[in-house]
Amino acid sequence: MHRPPRAFEEAEFAARCAAAQAAMQQAGVAATLLTSEAEIRYFTGFMTQFWQSPTRPWFVVMPLSGKPIAVIPSIGAPLMRQGYVGDIISWASPDEDDDGITLVADVIRQHVSKDAALGMLMGRETAVRMPLADLFALQKILGMPLRDMPLRDMTAAIQKIRMVKSPAEQAKLRYICGIVADVFEHVPEWLRPGMPLDACFRRFKMDALERGVDDVSYLVGAAGAGGYDDIIAPPTSTPVAAGDVVMFDTGCVWDGYFSDFDRNFSIGPPSQQAADAHKTLFDATEAALAMLRPGITAADLFTTMDKILRPGGSAGGDAGRDDVGRYGHGLGIQLTETPSHTAWDRTEITAGMALTIEPSISYGNGFVMVAEENLLVHDDHIELLSRRAPRDLPVI
Amino acid sequence: MHRPPRAFEEAEFAARCAAAQAAMQQAGVAATLLTSEAEIRYFTGFMTQFWQSPTRPWFVVMPLSGKPIAVIPSIGAPLMRQGYVGDIISWASPDEDDDGITLVADVIRQHVSKDAALGMLMGRETAVRMPLADLFALQKILGMPLRDMPLRDMTAAIQKIRMVKSPAEQAKLRYICGIVADVFEHVPEWLRPGMPLDACFRRFKMDALERGVDDVSYLVGAAGAGGYDDIIAPPTSTPVAAGDVVMFDTGCVWDGYFSDFDRNFSIGPPSQQAADAHKTLFDATEAALAMLRPGITAADLFTTMDKILRPGGSAGGDAGRDDVGRYGHGLGIQLTETPSHTAWDRTEITAGMALTIEPSISYGNGFVMVAEENLLVHDDHIELLSRRAPRDLPVI
Repeated sequence: MHRPPRAFEEAEFAARCAAAQAAMQQAGVAATLLTSEAEIRYFTGFMTQFWQSPTRPWFVVMPLSGKPIAVIPSIGAPLMRQGYVGDIISWASPDEDDDGITLVADVIRQHVSKDAALGMLMGRETAVRMPLADLFALQKILGMPLRDMPLRDMTAAIQKIRMVKSPAEQAKLRYICGIVADVFEHVPEWLRPGMPLDACFRRFKMDALERGVDDVSYLVGAAGAGGYDDIIAPPTSTPVAAGDVVMFDTGCVWDGYFSDFDRNFSIGPPSQQAADAHKTLFDATEAALAMLRPGITAADLFTTMDKILRPGGSAGGDAGRDDVGRYGHGLGIQLTETPSHTAWDRTEITAGMALTIEPSISYGNGFVMVAEENLLVHDDHIELLSRRAPRDLPVI
Repeated sequence: MHRPPRAFEEAEFAARCAAAQAAMQQAGVAATLLTSEAEIRYFTGFMTQFWQSPTRPWFVVMPLSGKPIAVIPSIGAPLMRQGYVGDIISWASPDEDDDGITLVADVIRQHVSKDAALGMLMGRETAVRMPLADLFALQKILGMPLRDMPLRDMTAAIQKIRMVKSPAEQAKLRYICGIVADVFEHVPEWLRPGMPLDACFRRFKMDALERGVDDVSYLVGAAGAGGYDDIIAPPTSTPVAAGDVVMFDTGCVWDGYFSDFDRNFSIGPPSQQAADAHKTLFDATEAALAMLRPGITAADLFTTMDKILRPGGSAGGDAGRDDVGRYGHGLGIQLTETPSHTAWDRTEITAGMALTIEPSISYGNGFVMVAEENLLVHDDHIELLSRRAPRDLPVI
C-alpha cells in the first residue's frame, strides 16, 4: 500500500482559508472565531492530542484576508509556529483571571468594525469550546450583549468546504481505510470462542497498530447470542461464545484522518434471522452504491436504503429512524462529519466527498445489526475505500 | 498486579449525585443541566467512545433529589439503561428541526420553577457541548433570555466533588498507572537509534495494549539533538539518533481512568545541560513529594517546585510560567482535572485526591524538559502510582 506523505503543502491551507474567506465576504462577516479542534486543525494544521486536556482554551481568528491569527496558550506556540498561521499571540495558560479573553477580544476588535458581523460556528455538529462564563466575558469586553451581537453562523459554509476532500486528503483516507480493511480481513485468524470481548478489542487494536495506523481512536462493538442490541458500548469481559454475532466498528486514524467502518462475524453457524439481516444490509448498501453519483442528495441515499431495509415503511419503533437515526455520514478529520444520510438532509453529493454507507436493521428479539462501508465520490465513479463486506455473514 | 472490577456499584453513583444535590441545595439551584462527556459519565456511568462523533447532543438533568434524568439520542438508550439514571427520554437524532431541545426544556421546566435557578457548568475547564444556536433556542423555549436567565455556575462545586476519588476510583488509577510504569520500564529494551519516532510511538502503544491498558488515548513526545522544544506534538518520521533526548508522555486508560506521566531517555551520553535539567526536575519533584500532605494548597506545590526550578524567580520568558503554565494537576476520568499547580490555585489538597507532579524547566538553546509523576493523597501518606523516575537521565 502506498503511504502518502504526512502533513500538507502550504497551498492546501491557503486554499481552505481562501474558500472560508470567500464565504465570509458573501455573508458580510469580517472575521470568524474558531474554538474547536477540527476547525482549528483544518485551517491551520495544528494537530495534537493535547485537546484531550480540558484545561486551556484555544482561539483562532480567521480574518477576511491573509492567514489565520492564533490566540493560544504558550504551551502550544512551538507547534502552532509550524502551521499555516500569521500572528501567534500567546499567554501563560491557565490564568487565574483572564484566560486569553482580553487577547482574543483585541484581535476581534482589530478585524470587526462597528457595523460588521463576527462569524462563529453555532449550528449542527458544532460546540463552542470555551467556558460559557468566558463567552459572556468576551461579549462584555466587546460591548456586544450576546443576543444583540451581530453574530453570523458560519456552520453551513464551513461544513460545505470541509465536505469536499482535496487529493491529498483523499490519499490519507485511502491509506487508513486500506490498512483497516487488512485488519478486518485477518480477524478470522485470531477471533475464537472463549476470548473475552475486551481481550478481542485489545488484539484488534494491536493488530491495527502493527499494520501502521497511528491510533485506534474509536473501537466499539458487541457480541451476543443471536445478535446485539447496542452499537456504542465499550467491551465487557464476557467470553465470546458459539452462536454469538460479534461486531467491531472502528475509527482508526492516520495523520489525523479517520476510517469508519465495521464488520460482523458469526461464531459458528448464525441464526436464520441474523443471516437474513446481514443479506438485507448488503442489499441496501448495493442499492446505495448503484445510485450514488454527484448530483443526488444525502436524502436520496436514505430513501434508497430505507425502501430495502423497511419495505413496510419507517414509521415508529424500528432501527433506522428511531435508533441509529441515519444510514451513514461524511468522513474526514472527525469520526463523523456532515452530511447525514437522513430523510431530511438535502445536501448535494459532489465529487471529492468521503462518505460512509451505514444501513442498520432491527430483527429478532430487540437485536440491531449495522454494516458500514467507506468511499470516495468521483466525477465518474465511486471508489470504495473499505473492501466490500460479503453478502453472507462470515462464520468463524 | 491486582486487576480491580470494571464499572462501579450503584452506591458509588448514588453518593456522587447526593453530593452534587447537596451543593445544589446550598446554591439555590433546582436542577443542573449537564452536556459534556466527563460530567455525564461521572454521575450516570454512561461510558462510550461515541462522544468522538460531534453529530448528536447528549443531555442529563440532575434534579434536587433522585436519579439523574437522561435526554439522549435513541442510539444511546440501551447503554444508558445500564447506568445510574431515572427516566430516559430519547429521540431519533440527528433531527432536522429540534435535536432534543424541546424535550430537555420540558424536563427543565418540570424541575425548575419560576423563582428557582438552573445550574450549568460555565467555569474553568468546562464547555457546553451543544450548538450555540440550540442553547439560544433552549432559552427562548424556557422564556429566559440568556443574560437575564437565573443561571448558577456549578463548576466549582462539581469539581470539588470530582477531585476526591473513592476507593474504587483509586483502585482503577492504581491499576492503570502500574501498567504504564511497566511499559516505561521496558522502553530501554526496544528504543534504539535509527527507529523513526512514529514507529517508536506505535511500538509504545502496542506494548501498553499487550500489558493490559484499554486505550492509549494520549501519547505525545519529542526527540531532538540535546533536547526538545515542544511537548504536545505528534511524532515525525525522523529516526531517533545518538545524542537525542527522547520524551514520551502518555495518558493511558483502563475502564475510563487515566494515567498521565512521562519519561525522558538519552540516546547515548547526554549533554551536561540535559543531565543537569533532569536532576533539577527530580529535585523539584522530591521537594513537592516531601511537603505534600492534606491541608496544603496547589499553590504551595507550585511555590515549592518553582524555588528549585527557577531560583532567580519566575519573571518572564521561562518555561514554568510562560510555556507549560503549571507544575501538575488533578487526574481521573480526564487526562487533566482540577486543581492546577499554579501560583494562584488555592485549592486545598485533601485525602483522596489523585494528582500529577509535573515540573518543567528551560535549558540550553530553547529546550524544555518535563518530568511527571502520578500519586494519591492519603490522610497519613502519599502513595506513588507511577514508579519514581531516577535522578540521572536514563541512557539508552
